[in-house]
Parts: sequence; C-alpha cells; structure tokens
Amino acid sequence: MTTMPQPSREQLDISRVLEALSNPIRQRVVAQLATTTDFRFTCGELLPDLPKSTATHHWRMLRDSGVVGVERNGREFRAGLRRDDLDARFPGLLDAVLAAVAPLTVG
Amino acid sequence: MTTMPQPSREQLDISRVLEALSNPIRQRVVAQLATTTDFRFTCGELLPDLPKSTATHHWRMLRDSGVVGVERNGREFRAGLRRDDLDARFPGLLDAVLAAVAPLTVG
Repeated sequence: MTTMPQPSREQLDISRVLEALSNPIRQRVVAQLATTTDFRFTCGELLPDLPKSTATHHWRMLRDSGVVGVERNGREFRAGLRRDDLDARFPGLLDAVLAAVAPLTVG
Repeated sequence: MTTMPQPSREQLDISRVLEALSNPIRQRVVAQLATTTDFRFTCGELLPDLPKSTATHHWRMLRDSGVVGVERNGREFRAGLRRDDLDARFPGLLDAVLAAVAPLTVG
C-alpha cells in the first residue's frame, strides 16, 4: 500500500484548497469521504459516471490541493479526506463547507 | 446612492462563494473589507495597481457571488463585505478564510 504524492500539512495553501472545494462534484466527493475516517471508498466508485479524463481532473484538484489523500494498493486507488490536516491549518473551514453541501450516495 | 445588482441572501451559492474566495487578490480585498462595517473603500483604492479589465473581473467575481456589495454614488463605487448574509448562509466560512489570509494595506 502506497500513499500517492501529496502536499504536506505545512504546504497546504488556502487558495488551492478553496479552489478544490469550489466545484459541486468535488464537494459531493468530499462530503461522502467525510462520512468515514478510513480509506473506504475507491476513486472509481466515488465518480463512476464521469469520463475518465474528467474524473482524473477532479482527483488531481482534490489531491494536489491536499484536501484528499489517495492510497494505492496494486490497481486499486482509495481516497480519504485529510480532515486532521485541514482542521489544523484552516480551523472551521471544512465544517463550514460540509454544512452547505450534500453527500453523494455511494453503494 | 444606488446598490449595484447582487444576489439575495437566499441566492448565495456555496460553489460561487468559494470560487470568489479562492483567489489571493480577492482574498486580500475581502480581508481589507472585513476591517470595517461600512462601505468605506472605493473599488479604485482597493485594487489600484491592476489593469482595468483585471480589476473588473475580480469585482465581478466578488459581486456576482454575493461576497461583496457595491454602492454607486455618481462616479464613485464603494465596496462592502456582505458579512451578515455570508454568516447567515454559511456559518463559520468567512471567519475560517479570513483567519488564513492577510489584508491589503489601503491608504
């Protein structure tokens, strides 16, 4: 199991985090990931109905901004919300956004 | 004195608000406006060093999203943060962003 490259907690940037959170599709992914503390959901099941290039774009925004971490296990990629890092750097931000958006329904 | 067209409190959309807040220049405008409760600053003095088309773009993002209100008095445009509306719709969001950004220095 490998954690995909991601910014450290100290590297998190408020502008990139807000940009990642500003898209409705990404908001629903984040809301869904907020329902668990482990890396339960595969990237495929979180965005199953999108063209691959679109899904890749959204994962890149989420991962490069540091909002979401991704763990690879062979061919399987599972995502998790970096809640502790976000709460440490930007207290209250994630909760404020989550209160305003509805989660995806997965599986 | 005329208030320029803007979305109502009920029309505020989390995605558009986050997008407006995701830009460092707009963040600094918002942080500067957060230092006062009245429409003290003119649009010109808040973004004095930008090409007019760039400044217009930023004001449009701020106003169309509902983050900032603009009052017109003849040729003078003054901006104010819509803090009450933002706090009512997205509690904690503005404070979380403001804690992470530094204000402009105006005048």
